[in-house]
Amino acid sequence: MKLILSSGEEFQLDKDESLYNALRRHEEYIVAPCGGKGICGKCIVRVIEGEFNVRSHGKLSETDIKSGLVLACQTFPESDIFIEVPQVSRLIVGDKIAIGHSREFLELFDKMGARPSSLIRREKIKLALPTIDDNVSDLERLKQALNEAGLTLYFSKNFTTGLSDSLRKNQWTINLCYEPVEKRALFAEPPGSERSRYGLAVDIGTTTIVADLVDLSDGRIIDVGSTYNSQMRYGDDVITRIVFATEGGGLNDLKDAVTADINNLSSIMCDRHSIDISDVECATIAGNTTMSHMFWGLNPEYIREEPYIPTVNRFPLWDAGDARLDINPVAPVYTVPCIASYVGGDVVAGVLASQMHRNPEISLFMDIGTNGEIVIGNNEWLMTAACSAGPCFEGSGIRCGMRATKGAIESINFDRNSFEPSIGVVNNAKPLGICGSGMIDAVAGMYLTGIIDQKGKLAKNLNTDRVQEGPEGYEFVFHRDRGGDIVLTEVDIENILRAKAAIYAGISLLIKQVGLTPDVIEKVYIAGGFGNYLDIKKGIIIGMLPDLPEEKYIFLGNTSIAGAYLSLMSEDMRNEAETIASKMTYVELSVSGNFMDEYMSAMFLPHTDISLFPSVRKLIGK
Amino acid sequence: MKLILSSGEEFQLDKDESLYNALRRHEEYIVAPCGGKGICGKCIVRVIEGEFNVRSHGKLSETDIKSGLVLACQTFPESDIFIEVPQVSRLIVGDKIAIGHSREFLELFDKMGARPSSLIRREKIKLALPTIDDNVSDLERLKQALNEAGLTLYFSKNFTTGLSDSLRKNQWTINLCYEPVEKRALFAEPPGSERSRYGLAVDIGTTTIVADLVDLSDGRIIDVGSTYNSQMRYGDDVITRIVFATEGGGLNDLKDAVTADINNLSSIMCDRHSIDISDVECATIAGNTTMSHMFWGLNPEYIREEPYIPTVNRFPLWDAGDARLDINPVAPVYTVPCIASYVGGDVVAGVLASQMHRNPEISLFMDIGTNGEIVIGNNEWLMTAACSAGPCFEGSGIRCGMRATKGAIESINFDRNSFEPSIGVVNNAKPLGICGSGMIDAVAGMYLTGIIDQKGKLAKNLNTDRVQEGPEGYEFVFHRDRGGDIVLTEVDIENILRAKAAIYAGISLLIKQVGLTPDVIEKVYIAGGFGNYLDIKKGIIIGMLPDLPEEKYIFLGNTSIAGAYLSLMSEDMRNEAETIASKMTYVELSVSGNFMDEYMSAMFLPHTDISLFPSVRKLIGK
Repeated sequence: MKLILSSGEEFQLDKDESLYNALRRHEEYIVAPCGGKGICGKCIVRVIEGEFNVRSHGKLSETDIKSGLVLACQTFPESDIFIEVPQVSRLIVGDKIAIGHSREFLELFDKMGARPSSLIRREKIKLALPTIDDNVSDLERLKQALNEAGLTLYFSKNFTTGLSDSLRKNQWTINLCYEPVEKRALFAEPPGSERSRYGLAVDIGTTTIVADLVDLSDGRIIDVGSTYNSQMRYGDDVITRIVFATEGGGLNDLKDAVTADINNLSSIMCDRHSIDISDVECATIAGNTTMSHMFWGLNPEYIREEPYIPTVNRFPLWDAGDARLDINPVAPVYTVPCIASYVGGDVVAGVLASQMHRNPEISLFMDIGTNGEIVIGNNEWLMTAACSAGPCFEGSGIRCGMRATKGAIESINFDRNSFEPSIGVVNNAKPLGICGSGMIDAVAGMYLTGIIDQKGKLAKNLNTDRVQEGPEGYEFVFHRDRGGDIVLTEVDIENILRAKAAIYAGISLLIKQVGLTPDVIEKVYIAGGFGNYLDIKKGIIIGMLPDLPEEKYIFLGNTSIAGAYLSLMSEDMRNEAETIASKMTYVELSVSGNFMDEYMSAMFLPHTDISLFPSVRKLIGK
Repeated sequence: MKLILSSGEEFQLDKDESLYNALRRHEEYIVAPCGGKGICGKCIVRVIEGEFNVRSHGKLSETDIKSGLVLACQTFPESDIFIEVPQVSRLIVGDKIAIGHSREFLELFDKMGARPSSLIRREKIKLALPTIDDNVSDLERLKQALNEAGLTLYFSKNFTTGLSDSLRKNQWTINLCYEPVEKRALFAEPPGSERSRYGLAVDIGTTTIVADLVDLSDGRIIDVGSTYNSQMRYGDDVITRIVFATEGGGLNDLKDAVTADINNLSSIMCDRHSIDISDVECATIAGNTTMSHMFWGLNPEYIREEPYIPTVNRFPLWDAGDARLDINPVAPVYTVPCIASYVGGDVVAGVLASQMHRNPEISLFMDIGTNGEIVIGNNEWLMTAACSAGPCFEGSGIRCGMRATKGAIESINFDRNSFEPSIGVVNNAKPLGICGSGMIDAVAGMYLTGIIDQKGKLAKNLNTDRVQEGPEGYEFVFHRDRGGDIVLTEVDIENILRAKAAIYAGISLLIKQVGLTPDVIEKVYIAGGFGNYLDIKKGIIIGMLPDLPEEKYIFLGNTSIAGAYLSLMSEDMRNEAETIASKMTYVELSVSGNFMDEYMSAMFLPHTDISLFPSVRKLIGK
């Protein structure tokens, strides 16, 4: 029997194998916090064709079941079966490209010249054997030895509980593992044990969660996993989720969702490499302020109420048990510091990875993820602002939107005469949707070819059947498919214009705020979801990016996970992140009277004031 | 309907009232960790006469039920009912005499000249209102204000979770409550709140647990509760319990037993005084080394294995949540430091309360509780040893033994001619058993009147029917009762001789160890369960106490709870307890070759070497 995925892959099915197990065996991972035990009810896939037995439908509704939805771990094929794994159910682990990018982090770390130093330190302690005459207690004996090594630590009840057996089992010689900042003893282990220790670096995006499993002994990235943030089911953007947390009493659900995602990824990665998950002994988290609050279960209510005050920006070092992570429960978890309600640890991590805070030249840093955050500055000063661009470039709120993963249309070119698009798809796979860079290409191309006007409205009188009326009004078809056409609707296009306008207005206002003009900017660092795929020229054409020479633009990819990785690797890096956070001045755009004007002017293609975009004026002139 | 207790009390019964509720309403408390909800199955009483309905027998066996045992909370009388509350099921709360004694602790504290200072401190913090321009996070705002007050604290996740709401609810002015040693923020509360705060001082004896509920604002003892240590069901002495914990895997059961007892007492005391149990915000614990380990759930295994090493002697400050106490979960819990495996925090607490460590004269401190511990020294040096006397003076291992509570025969005098005893009973109640002081009176009197010989054997040829043959051999009847005579058997007497011999041998050896003779001792402090009731002369007659002038003996009662109280009241006192622990030198008697000789010599009445007891020789001479 065969298992056929809508993405085109085919796998052999074993007898009596559940869909969940078959997918997992072939390294197609799906969301299942319970590990495929039929408890969590989250491993939902759609059967398009084929015979199967179902053990349980869990909490799926009649409508769901009729539409072909099943729980993968409860479904046992009886014939060849053709299924679709919904985007939000997918966990992507071991993706070669992602691992490749991540491997560059180690080079970056080396280049930055920081000394490796984990969140945990080890001290080899050899104790004198107790005797009738030397009968101090185990803990006092250990304290004396540590004092001789110049260490004074706090010993929790949990640490102390295991101490007496541990000392005797290891013949009174142990490696004492401790957390050096708060000076807390964490655990004792046999000395000279040669096994590796691991750390987890996590980027908690509003839309996507990425986790790197790192070998702390050499900084090697062993595996990379990513998934849609399961909080998505409670709302696409942070505001909706804050409302759900505070008015709907859903903070715990949101907290559980993100924890389950991270646990899901870390357990799969540890499994794949036969690593005991309790050997993952520290973690770092980078996320925007709301995500950081929700990860720790802190009330996000006041983030969205004027004057926009988070509970914490500089997080104390709490532990994995506090966060209910499945790694070693005493693992210290470092949270990359946040700046303000709408500029978070992901941006600080990004600045750290960009190194703009180390250089005298003035740079602009842009993180275009679910929101748009921008930083301008150099080694002496840093200013930052948030422009609420929304999550559309991550695929959310766009009918056929998706992340830049396999099957995403990432680049589009148009034939000027026939209006026919030629598309590039991630991994050259069958097209499944459009990612952020594809959207920008689409809008730029459609604008230049006259498929849309300056306001983003579709021309209905063109000699092409690609403009059609769909269920939500007019739309442009990029790819025809029996499972549904891949299109951008007029509503999608308006959403894209809103997003690009918010970003441009933010950049424009922040530059004015510091009394500068765009031409002083030496470098523009582009971070965020669609990272390397973005065509700068087209970003300028649609008026999202300032009209600067292309060579000033530098792609950095996901700098949030890069910064999380750097912070995991070294205390120097953590200190640098703290310094960045101290230095950075936050500008609240929403209270600036000029923001609305700037935003409205930027709602056109490329901009109401075309003189700001001389290169585009030239192009249109052609 | 009436409820009649075997102790003689009678109460009116309400309609449809359970035995548990009726007893509680009349301030007769019984063990019930679940609070009478039919869950724990521990509120066992025996119905002797009367009609009743039973809702559930829980886990009582057929034999139990046939013998009249019922769960008090599941039993509803239908007629006048006559019941017996087993000793081990009783909680004694609000006992006037106990409260009276405890009130002397405040005088003692005043006399000691220490400054009151709780384990928790408060700092009133007034924060500037956040604005768009002053938008640091809540935690950073708080930290800044604390820094101005010279305080740097650690903020746990739990503290931080409630922070944002707490600040806003209290208009940005709070009392920050923190633990000053480890410098941890604990909770925030409204400023200027005038309500009292409470602390709990606990003496965890092997046989008995005593808890004082203290108003921290003025040091007043609000209530006192005591109960048999429920660990008794796993063994009378620490060795049996250590074996059960380590070989029987019963550490958790033992930990739960003591925790449940303390929670039982504290919840009843808080109820009686309408105190919210979460307002009990700190606690101190004094117990022997094994009890201290079991309270914290630490492995006691190595306490009883040569070279007798406890896991901890100086306990870090852990919190009530770690101990699963029902008071405020972040309440810091101070454990009075232990010295060695068999000299614990109860002894350090006792020395503290005795003040012997402050005076130049040489004193002997004796704590005759479940074990016998002795300390000799002054303000310059302190030596200590443990003599395993066993728990007989607390009523355990003696057929009619009981604690010195209502109904205990506490004093006995004999008529030289008729051998008739005249007995004194605690609270002048109906006799229920014999407590430690009664046992010593009995043995001394029986020895002097010839009822027993020097080896403690009963004379069978006396002209009295009080010497009779019982199920366990010969016995002497002190009180005849339809429910069973109150007697001492020959086995009981041998147990008493063993205990007194262990104590005397310990004192004798420790004095020799420091190269002194008994006559240098200026004061003998007597602490422990039978405290004030002990007749010194008779203690000398049986050869338990050294033959010193009576005026050198001073009764201190339960010094373990006194020291726990002092430690609760003041940091000075806690520091003094730590200093005592540092100063005290432990002598391991069990490895001394002379101990067995000393012990065997002391197994006679009063001693093989009568020259050591000149006052007794004189008496016998009469």
